[in-house]
Amino acid sequence: MAYGALLQALIDELGRLPGIGPKSAQRIAFHLLKVAPEDALRLSEAIVAVKEKVTLCPRCFNVAEGTLCDVCLDPRRDATVLCVVEDPRDIVAVEKTQEFRGRYHVLQGALNPIEGVGPDQLRIRELLARLDDEGVTEVILCTNPNLEGEATAMYLARMLKPLGVRVTRLASGLPVGGDLEYADELTLGRALEGRREVDA
Amino acid sequence: MAYGALLQALIDELGRLPGIGPKSAQRIAFHLLKVAPEDALRLSEAIVAVKEKVTLCPRCFNVAEGTLCDVCLDPRRDATVLCVVEDPRDIVAVEKTQEFRGRYHVLQGALNPIEGVGPDQLRIRELLARLDDEGVTEVILCTNPNLEGEATAMYLARMLKPLGVRVTRLASGLPVGGDLEYADELTLGRALEGRREVDA
Repeated sequence: MAYGALLQALIDELGRLPGIGPKSAQRIAFHLLKVAPEDALRLSEAIVAVKEKVTLCPRCFNVAEGTLCDVCLDPRRDATVLCVVEDPRDIVAVEKTQEFRGRYHVLQGALNPIEGVGPDQLRIRELLARLDDEGVTEVILCTNPNLEGEATAMYLARMLKPLGVRVTRLASGLPVGGDLEYADELTLGRALEGRREVDA
Repeated sequence: MAYGALLQALIDELGRLPGIGPKSAQRIAFHLLKVAPEDALRLSEAIVAVKEKVTLCPRCFNVAEGTLCDVCLDPRRDATVLCVVEDPRDIVAVEKTQEFRGRYHVLQGALNPIEGVGPDQLRIRELLARLDDEGVTEVILCTNPNLEGEATAMYLARMLKPLGVRVTRLASGLPVGGDLEYADELTLGRALEGRREVDA
């Protein structure tokens, strides 16, 4: 005997979510079975609402719940500086720093030939179109500091530099609060390479 | 900036599920945002279906999707042997062994005075009623081999024995495929205490 068809269907659907194994799926299904109906239905309705109303911003491809995303709608943002990220979640990470007042452009991925992601699968054409349209003077390449992200940044830098726009990349180095002893050699190497004059 | 209201609501609801932290909730929300609408809606509908149609079997308190649960509906099950478990998930575990052909009774918990679970919070009154109604001759106490489960089994054994029914308990001992070296002393003690004659 397994569970009944309906409960098993819920366990199967939960098990398809990333990071949810069969045991977790079972545990969550029984949790949903046990909670007040309104609590479970709030989750169900939140899924429907997100699928119906959340779209990608047609300008920067961030998530949006109307026409443009919150950043593009904000008139105080500086249109001349563009931060290029791989994923909308990266925007939240950058926003949390409160160090950036420009706009974003979400590539929706990074170059990854093995998985069939080439320049045409990313929002690169749209990025180029924005340079002129919005009078962009600086592009900050905020792709992830891994193989795919670095390759994507390199590709974009080669494409953007001849267009006369300033192209910058996030600094690599030791994380704040980190420990020199546990830093990997690549990070430590980058930190040495990017060393800065001490103001004293 | 955080996410938009709808996406944040979904992340919040996912974060309320057991074993899902804020990062996992975010990851799952973005996964749901990315998949085909029908895939996300299948999950949403599975939640609604389970909340609307899955109930507890009025006889044994297993999960049921109609009147009685699948086990109670099966005429081939032996009504004279009753396996008492804490949770419907335990039934699936016992069923997988294919060693038990009787019926179940789900207590819906175990005695836990600290959390306010006393005998009245468990389905003990209903268990006693079934003994006569169904002509039960043996009750197998399949509560968990932990403090609460053992206390519950002890409580039930003392209550059931005077009623002239055979009361048994799952054997404690080393798990099959386990390693003597890594067994805790309680388990190894129980295994010694419950040692059996070797048939040779």
